[in-house]
Formats: sequence, C-alpha cells, structure tokens
Amino acid sequence: MYKAGDVRVETVPDARIVEPTDALLRVTRACICGSDLWPYNLMEPVERGRPMGHEAIGIVEAVGAEVRTLKRGDLVVMPFAYSDGTCVFCRDGIHTSCVNGGFFGLPEPGGAQAEALRIPQADGTLVPVPVGPDDVLMASLLTLSDVMGTGHHAAVTARVGPGRAVAVIGDGAVGLCGVIAARRLGAEQVFIMGRRPDRIALAKDFGATDVVSERGDEAVERVRELTGGFGVHSVLECVGTDQAMATAIGIARPGGAVGRVGVPHYETTDAWVTGFYNNVTVSGGPAPVRGYINELLPDVLEGRIEPGRVFDRIVGLDEVPDGYRAMNERESIKVMVRLG
Amino acid sequence: MYKAGDVRVETVPDARIVEPTDALLRVTRACICGSDLWPYNLMEPVERGRPMGHEAIGIVEAVGAEVRTLKRGDLVVMPFAYSDGTCVFCRDGIHTSCVNGGFFGLPEPGGAQAEALRIPQADGTLVPVPVGPDDVLMASLLTLSDVMGTGHHAAVTARVGPGRAVAVIGDGAVGLCGVIAARRLGAEQVFIMGRRPDRIALAKDFGATDVVSERGDEAVERVRELTGGFGVHSVLECVGTDQAMATAIGIARPGGAVGRVGVPHYETTDAWVTGFYNNVTVSGGPAPVRGYINELLPDVLEGRIEPGRVFDRIVGLDEVPDGYRAMNERESIKVMVRLG
Repeated sequence: MYKAGDVRVETVPDARIVEPTDALLRVTRACICGSDLWPYNLMEPVERGRPMGHEAIGIVEAVGAEVRTLKRGDLVVMPFAYSDGTCVFCRDGIHTSCVNGGFFGLPEPGGAQAEALRIPQADGTLVPVPVGPDDVLMASLLTLSDVMGTGHHAAVTARVGPGRAVAVIGDGAVGLCGVIAARRLGAEQVFIMGRRPDRIALAKDFGATDVVSERGDEAVERVRELTGGFGVHSVLECVGTDQAMATAIGIARPGGAVGRVGVPHYETTDAWVTGFYNNVTVSGGPAPVRGYINELLPDVLEGRIEPGRVFDRIVGLDEVPDGYRAMNERESIKVMVRLG
Repeated sequence: MYKAGDVRVETVPDARIVEPTDALLRVTRACICGSDLWPYNLMEPVERGRPMGHEAIGIVEAVGAEVRTLKRGDLVVMPFAYSDGTCVFCRDGIHTSCVNGGFFGLPEPGGAQAEALRIPQADGTLVPVPVGPDDVLMASLLTLSDVMGTGHHAAVTARVGPGRAVAVIGDGAVGLCGVIAARRLGAEQVFIMGRRPDRIALAKDFGATDVVSERGDEAVERVRELTGGFGVHSVLECVGTDQAMATAIGIARPGGAVGRVGVPHYETTDAWVTGFYNNVTVSGGPAPVRGYINELLPDVLEGRIEPGRVFDRIVGLDEVPDGYRAMNERESIKVMVRLG
C-alpha cells in the first residue's frame, strides 16, 4: 500500500530466513482484514510501499537451525502477531505483548498478502493443522489467524458466560465471529447491531437472537427496551469509533463489561465518563489469537463452528486491490486471497 | 455550598421522615471527602445552597412504618449512596446503581455535613454496628461510609490478588485506604505514588513497599524500572484526571488492570488508546460500599485494619468551611466532623 486507496501488486525480493528461529512460509490462503481498511482510508503517502496482510494459512518451505517443532511441508495457521510462546506475557496469555514478538503487515517481517513470508519466532507462532491444503475446512481454519480469535477475545474480555445477554457492535467479519463466540460461551440472548440483510442473515445463522437496526441513541433505547430497561451484561465492541464506544457503554448494564477489539480511533471522552458512573468494565485489545487457537481449533475441525462462512469473495493475488475496494464499499464482508 | 469556595453553615428546616421506608438519622460523625473538593473548586453559583456531605455515622432517631431491621437508638454506618438491597443491581453487588437508589449530598435527600438527615431505603442502606457512639474505633468505622470501601473497590476492580505488584495513584484518603486494601487482598509489592512526607509515612505504615515521587513520564519510567521493565499487574486510580489515567495506563503491564475510583475529569483519549494496545482492563466506578461493609467490618472491629488513621483533623459543624479549605490546600488529608 502506497497511500490511502492505492494498493499495488508488485514483485519484490524473495522472503528468506534471517534468524535461526525463523521459518519461511509459502502462503496458500490470505485475506483482507477490516483493520486494513483504516490505512486504506487514511494512510499518508510513503515512498516504499507498506507490505500488507497479517492473516494466512500456508506451507512451511524451510526452517531456521533452531526451529524444533516445525518441518518443511507442514500446513500451518499463522496468527496476525508473532510471539515466542515462552516469555512472561505469552505465559499470561497476552501473546500480542510478547517481549520478542511483533506484528505482520509491516516492512519487517513483511505482509501475508504475498506468495511467501518470513515468520519470526516460528516455534511459538505457527500452529500445524492436521488437514490437506485444499480441505473444505480451509476457510474456517483461516479465520483462526485473526477474526475468529478476535471475536472470541471480545467475548472473553466482555465476560460472556452462560445465560448472559450480549450485544455485538459491528457487523463485519469480527462482529459476526463475535456472535459465534458469544453463543459458544453460553450467551442466552445475542443482539446484533446492524442493518445489512446479508450480514444480519449470517448473524442469525450464527446464533444471534435479536437484531437492532437503529443507530446511536435510538439503538441504545431499543436494547434497553428489549432487556427490561437494564441493558446487556456484555458488549463486543468490534468497530473502534467514538460512536461505537458510546453505544457500547450506553447499552451495557451497570456492572457490565465491554470487550473492545476495534482498532481505536477516539476523539471524545464521553463514553469513558458514562462508563465510570455505571461501573462498566472496559477490556480487550489486540487479540492474543495464538493462545486461542488451541481452544478453538477442535471446534473448527469437528464442525461445531463455521466462522469461514464470513468469506463471501475469493480473489487471486492480482485481484487484491479490487478486494480492498469491495470490502471498503461493503460490497463484501470478507475477502479471501487464494494462492497456489 | 453556594459556589466554588463558598461553604456556609446554616439553619435549615429539620430533616424528617417522608416515605415509610425512610429513617431519620442523627449524625454523630461526618466528614469532608476528596470528591467534595471538585465542586469546592469548580461549582457554579446557585441560588439555594447545595447540602453537602455523604459520609456519616449516626444514631437512628426514628423509622418509617415499613422499616423492619432498624430501631430508634441504633448506631449505624451510612454509605454514601442509598440502596434498597433487593433490586437486581444490589443483588449483583452494584448498589450504586440501585433502581430505587440515589446519592447523599444533594438537595434530596440532603447532606451529611449536618445534624440530621433523612435516609431513604433505610433497611437496605444503614448498617448497625455493635459499639458505643464514642468507641475508639469510630474513625475507622466512619471510613466504611466511603473512603475505605472506595479504596477496596479500586483494589477489587484492579484485580489485586496474592503476589501481585500494585500501584496506587493518589495519596489522598482513598489512595491511602487503597494501600490497606491492596495489602489486605495479598499484594506483594505496593507502590505509592506521592511526595508529601506525612502521607508517604502513613502509606508505609499501611503496607506500601515502594515510594515513587516522580510524576508523569518519569513516574512511569521509574515504576517500570522497579518491576523488571514490565509494569504492575494492578493500578488503583484514585484521582480522576487525564494525567492520573495516563500514568495508570502507562505503568500497567500488558494484560493488567486499572481500577478507577477518582471522579472522572477527562479531556483527552490518549490513555484509552494506549490501554487498548496493551490489553489493559479499565474497571471501577462509584464504589458499592454498602456491599463491602459486610466484608470489611470484621477487620475494622478486630483491629486488623486501621483506615481511621487517614483522619488528621477533627472539627465541629461550625468549622466545616475551614475544613474544606484545609483539605483543599492539602494541609489536611481528611477532616472528620464531630457532632453531639
């Protein structure tokens, strides 16, 4: 990406192993993330393009001398952040704060919307999956890279549990995965806030029990009406704007919790003050999806959850720029990039 | 209080029972709260003065027809909020959001810096204590009205637990009670952020293990240095300003938690964005002290905690205006008002 709206497919020097703890990943599936749309709309021009993409499944092409748990030919899921798996924060389950970690989709180590990619801390980062590269589960496995784990993080940090009333703000791929996560954790009532028929239909398939198509104060009023005036126990905030946070805090019941996973773009403090008076807990952040893969993988492999249904378009590498356009115009929920 | 800096002691109509669920409280001890200093500095002029004070111990003078658990002559602690004790939020432990509740220190039901006060929802609100009105424990019992329960709320919502590293921001009475609460909940290391010798000395008596007298970025750096570069697990934010919140978020380790109890006066969103990237949970709000009295009272009665030591000045009702001045100028940590 060279600037807002300017995504180019270019030939660059081959990715290669640099550190002995690296692996080289040949990407077989990647995707475009809702969070990629922030730079797609706001990025200042740069001289050397920024490599994009932080979600992938691929095949290990080579491993560095110190890699112990992976071998050439393994099919693996790549979380959007790399992490050593052994530091104090990884052990606490906050892999996105790994002391030797970092994020994909930056000049180093590179982006996953590409044929190949260097994977730092390969042992800690990559998770082999016991299927072939064209398995029917590929779409759902790919969501473990980011959106399913991120929806799950929103639900966990919003303290979703059995019998809870839950609202999901954001009808993008993360919000839809949040619906799956909320039901999976036992939520009784799940509100989806949105109005696009295809997304609402999918949310209902995923287990949403109520649809709120109002916005702003009217949305807050509607959710309160539907919850005896009290609001919901848990809110999954999957957008990141002031309005989304105001709605999240507004519909949380006193003592409730908001799990926020939308990349924050705030300008006002109003919601933070309101949240105080209602003892609303605000938690969340970049999802430590690496840690969640272990928990979610069996449910994907055994078909109990189908987060791969968020993909409604498949493109080749050359069509990635049009994929950005389609997602940005809400023509597509989530675009998969298929290689090889 | 008629406006910022203008506190007057006036004769007003006697408090009386209005609802059958009311009690009439004759105040024997009240106090001035750090939160009273916000209006003392910022309040716009009003025609009819605002009754002040929301912390008290007193003797039940009379009860309404429906009051079941209290009788004339009972010595009781009055939490700063009234609550019915039976609604959904009281049952959840969020008494400050009681559907039939409200706050003292407002035109209705009145203020506790007074000889007498109407207590709505008396059965749910007042807690009888098994001591005489001049017992040596009176100062510590009085803190259960607000500051000790509020420090405890900061610690609970900051997820303080055994072995944790904890920082307390704010060396006022609430912060000092936060030190007590943190140690009581098993914190291993407790940082007090402050520089006034008398308060630091008391914090150390209460169990603070480290003193950080730097401010702003230097304070953040110092706490990080003293925690292996990581920051603390739990931060008790007992101030409410942008700078306090920035420090709180800055010294919280990834995955850590901030319990905020300082009345919020925010202007910037910086801390909220930083907190996102570090997966810091922000919790807290007005402390449901009514619920905490049951937990804390035995420790006060048996002398295991001595939060009453935060009082360093005792005044009569006529001296209340000077008490505000003394607290506002940091000449006093906390002022007790003694009546009768």
